[in-house]
Amino acid sequence: MGLLIVGTVAFDALETPFGKTDKILGGAATYIGLSASHFVPKSHLVSVVGGDFPQEHMDLLASKGVDLAGLQVKKDEKTFFWSGKYHLDMNSRDTVDTQLNVLADFDPVVPQEFMHCTYLMLGNLVPAVQKRVLAQLPQRPKLIVLDTMNFWMENALPDLLEAIKEVDVLTINDEEARLLSGELNLVKAAQKIRTLGPKTLIIKKGEHGALLFGQNNEIFFAPALPLADVVDPTGAGDTFAGGFIGYLAQTDDISFENMKRALLYAATMASFCVEKFGTERLNTLTTEEVAVRRAQFTQLVHVHPVS
Amino acid sequence: MGLLIVGTVAFDALETPFGKTDKILGGAATYIGLSASHFVPKSHLVSVVGGDFPQEHMDLLASKGVDLAGLQVKKDEKTFFWSGKYHLDMNSRDTVDTQLNVLADFDPVVPQEFMHCTYLMLGNLVPAVQKRVLAQLPQRPKLIVLDTMNFWMENALPDLLEAIKEVDVLTINDEEARLLSGELNLVKAAQKIRTLGPKTLIIKKGEHGALLFGQNNEIFFAPALPLADVVDPTGAGDTFAGGFIGYLAQTDDISFENMKRALLYAATMASFCVEKFGTERLNTLTTEEVAVRRAQFTQLVHVHPVS
Repeated sequence: MGLLIVGTVAFDALETPFGKTDKILGGAATYIGLSASHFVPKSHLVSVVGGDFPQEHMDLLASKGVDLAGLQVKKDEKTFFWSGKYHLDMNSRDTVDTQLNVLADFDPVVPQEFMHCTYLMLGNLVPAVQKRVLAQLPQRPKLIVLDTMNFWMENALPDLLEAIKEVDVLTINDEEARLLSGELNLVKAAQKIRTLGPKTLIIKKGEHGALLFGQNNEIFFAPALPLADVVDPTGAGDTFAGGFIGYLAQTDDISFENMKRALLYAATMASFCVEKFGTERLNTLTTEEVAVRRAQFTQLVHVHPVS
Repeated sequence: MGLLIVGTVAFDALETPFGKTDKILGGAATYIGLSASHFVPKSHLVSVVGGDFPQEHMDLLASKGVDLAGLQVKKDEKTFFWSGKYHLDMNSRDTVDTQLNVLADFDPVVPQEFMHCTYLMLGNLVPAVQKRVLAQLPQRPKLIVLDTMNFWMENALPDLLEAIKEVDVLTINDEEARLLSGELNLVKAAQKIRTLGPKTLIIKKGEHGALLFGQNNEIFFAPALPLADVVDPTGAGDTFAGGFIGYLAQTDDISFENMKRALLYAATMASFCVEKFGTERLNTLTTEEVAVRRAQFTQLVHVHPVS
């Protein structure tokens, strides 16, 4: 039962036009777990860190209900490290440094008690690792969501295509949708990608919102909230994914209509993530703040009928 | 009474990744008039063309209720001509040729019978000409909307600032908002621009929708409809403006709540414009098609409440 999250737990060093950080807590699974914690009391993590990963970070995750029984700790190795610098418009970034460390030979092991998870979030990770997780599960979860990125499309496409063939929902950004499909137009890109396996596709457009394409050619759009202060986009896509699957797991309803609601919660969660560096905003976020902001998304597009 | 439209009437030669045209009907006022015709039975045009401007184009505009009494025809001169080529993603374009011709010394004359218009649309044009129109009106219209572009910000900023000081609503795109305000963030850009005169600001983001900023810091967002076939963006911004002011003139209600509705009609009209080259799609568009597509905009963001 419950939500299983597979992905990186990492150290990030970030620089944006608004400041820079030393090594701070990062990783796709970290953001997904923190985000999903506003919807489900408990989630289960499968990941790996080194002996340098501090107890305080584990305590933070545990305090949010993220079960760490599936977190491998390799005492004599170092945690995955990524360093990036964002350009002025924050829509693009350069990787300054990548140290795979424990990730280089990560062999995911799903603990026995997580084997029957109903919701599976495969965070952005080597596609071969995502596949190995799927292979371990004795029965198919009710819903599998996979997030990936352009790097794997360029460097591990055969594995990636095999992985996404098995999933229900794929989340990628607009550039990645164009890259994966070879189509410039997003509607045509979505049609093509949905023939590769995922019945449902989410195309994330960052500050321009997100599109949800359903199996009966339905299209739904969740706007992004116009924010006056955006300081660091790191983890926004993971936070988005965590809100999406967290809401679906909470409501246990995978209809397209409910996925629309989940998309709005996903956008809500991502809007918080970008307001501070790293996970800082998520660390202290309250569920009441989530509800208030979710209502702002409704207001943003709401029109009273003509009286 | 009624809607007065000031702007260019022109010949365009267009090239996009989907084809190219010879000299076809173009110009900001043309698109605005065709678009507004779905909302008001009559509008009044102030513009200028040369002796080479064919009767059939005038007949088309007249058939849509665009009164041409304010269209100067300079028999021995040539109509304004613009030629442009769009890049592969169609978000940017190069100007191939600009021949100002009659526009070089255009002195707008508002006919006596249009002097008391209640809605004034100042389409994209030399800011000094926009100012001269404002100076001729004996009383302020109920609502003045001004559209402009980066070229005037870079080459005629003092005139432009004087013109926009007098208007109620300014419509520009996201890059222009950043240029005019010196702010990268659109929320901050809007706050700054609204201190320059216009109480209301519309930021057009093309395929990413449009933002409406009101005088009490309200924000409303109209999405763009995801379209499978976009062949030519020329005139989309003008068509958007024509839908916006056309709907306001039709309903004669300039509240923020009604501007939200107008913005959705603006987006609806623009979504048609891009489907064919030049004005082709607008020429044959029916008001029933407008209603059907307007409903698709509602569906795109609509979520049923949890039952």
